[in-house]
Amino acid sequence: MTKEELLKNYFAKDGYVKLSGIEIAEITEEKAVVCAKVNPDHLNGNGFVQGGMLYTLADFAFAVLSNYLHPMTVTQCGQITYLRPAKTDFLTATARETARAGHNTVSEVLVQDASGAVVCICHFNGFVKDVTWEDFDKIVNQE
Amino acid sequence: MTKEELLKNYFAKDGYVKLSGIEIAEITEEKAVVCAKVNPDHLNGNGFVQGGMLYTLADFAFAVLSNYLHPMTVTQCGQITYLRPAKTDFLTATARETARAGHNTVSEVLVQDASGAVVCICHFNGFVKDVTWEDFDKIVNQE
Amino acid sequence: MTKEELLKNYFAKDGYVKLSGIEIAEITEEKAVVCAKVNPDHLNGNGFVQGGMLYTLADFAFAVLSNYLHPMTVTQCGQITYLRPAKTDFLTATARETARAGHNTVSEVLVQDASGAVVCICHFNGFVKDVTWEDFDKIVNQE
Amino acid sequence: MTKEELLKNYFAKDGYVKLSGIEIAEITEEKAVVCAKVNPDHLNGNGFVQGGMLYTLADFAFAVLSNYLHPMTVTQCGQITYLRPAKTDFLTATARETARAGHNTVSEVLVQDASGAVVCICHFNGFVKDVTWEDFDKIVNQE
Repeated sequence: MTKEELLKNYFAKDGYVKLSGIEIAEITEEKAVVCAKVNPDHLNGNGFVQGGMLYTLADFAFAVLSNYLHPMTVTQCGQITYLRPAKTDFLTATARETARAGHNTVSEVLVQDASGAVVCICHFNGFVKDVTWEDFDKIVNQE
Repeated sequence: MTKEELLKNYFAKDGYVKLSGIEIAEITEEKAVVCAKVNPDHLNGNGFVQGGMLYTLADFAFAVLSNYLHPMTVTQCGQITYLRPAKTDFLTATARETARAGHNTVSEVLVQDASGAVVCICHFNGFVKDVTWEDFDKIVNQE
Repeated sequence: MTKEELLKNYFAKDGYVKLSGIEIAEITEEKAVVCAKVNPDHLNGNGFVQGGMLYTLADFAFAVLSNYLHPMTVTQCGQITYLRPAKTDFLTATARETARAGHNTVSEVLVQDASGAVVCICHFNGFVKDVTWEDFDKIVNQE
Repeated sequence: MTKEELLKNYFAKDGYVKLSGIEIAEITEEKAVVCAKVNPDHLNGNGFVQGGMLYTLADFAFAVLSNYLHPMTVTQCGQITYLRPAKTDFLTATARETARAGHNTVSEVLVQDASGAVVCICHFNGFVKDVTWEDFDKIVNQE
């Protein structure tokens, strides 16, 4: 099983990602991209994509990237800045690692609407447990 | 219609809050409390409450409090620190305002499990539009 | 030597705190308060207290509190929200712990001007090394 | 007077930047770089560069970039993650804008030691006042 397949199996068990209709679009050493088709369940009372949905999308992009680069990584802190209301039928979140040092990894995630406009920017700080892929595999299959 | 009823009508239109099973428990001048019964849709691949769900709960507590104190307030920034994995069947998020100045309001939100242990801490920064309750009412009923 | 004296000796070696004219005003289990008389070295080009000075004051209040409660604690993340321009001759920063879990501690720090108005709000996340006061003493005296 | 000269005159009035020994190294549309020779005034009790100094350096890189790109911009929020202790004789902070929308600008700032290692990562959120350079000039020369 490739690293990518292992990760996809792992994240297939994430109930809230599934509930939110979020899917993995791309995983490489440079970036992870996740996406969602927007439906009424994602909107707030003003008809824009709800802030929690935007955060969840961004957080998942970070989880995919950081676990791919450094199995296993758990989020310690997340920070989100909302730039404009999101009125769109499709969203992507793209995570890129800014730096890694010791057990810490920091990534920037951009959430964009269907036109490519940046809707919000997130920064995440993860704690890297540095397990091997063999151990990651065992953990994924045990749970 | 009271301010509280107006707010509840407004937030009843929030699709993602409904999808996430989050409800308003309490609204006062001092604090807003929202809660959720945890079900498998809220869990990540490790069986803990997913980080996006925790953020969404906290963000909603802030939205309820800040719109109650200052109609209408929109979130500008959110920040979340995860303290421990959440393995629980019930979660609450309690928002308290730390300070208000000009068009800015800052609140702290604690997310707690069924035993009262703090699972994560959030801080939100909102922009206050300072509309009247009459205008808030019109906005809510138009949408 | 009391814990408070030990901490004061430790922080007396902090060159940037000294350069910035910051002093410890109070240390208790509930809070740490630090303060500074504002002089022209602290002002930006608009005549207000500079943002870095405000952060440095807040960060020091957190360092004092968290090392008092949990020797030794190192800052992992800091976050600052500026609420109003600071035009004042005296500033205080008051740190209070919000929660502690495992090796993590989170505090909120309010920076206030001479009139008591909140100028900025900070949140800090520290990693607790959990050394004994005996070891803290040795570290302080070795360095 | 060029935009760059105007900015340098403006920031020459910043007392805390001067006190901290920070200088502007480069200003372009892509990035702003500021730097400092480290001396004992910048060190904490452990002999590392103090956290407030690191923040002040980063915040200044953001101020230079954002005022160059969008006169005048004021910092609303700042966030810093410390990656490793800074034991070095020279520091640089490099700011790059991540996104701009309406009155908001967000930048990422990397602080690096003399070897190029990233010591900390900062993110800043500024409010853009959108004044003309003529007005910026008047403001700078009045003060």
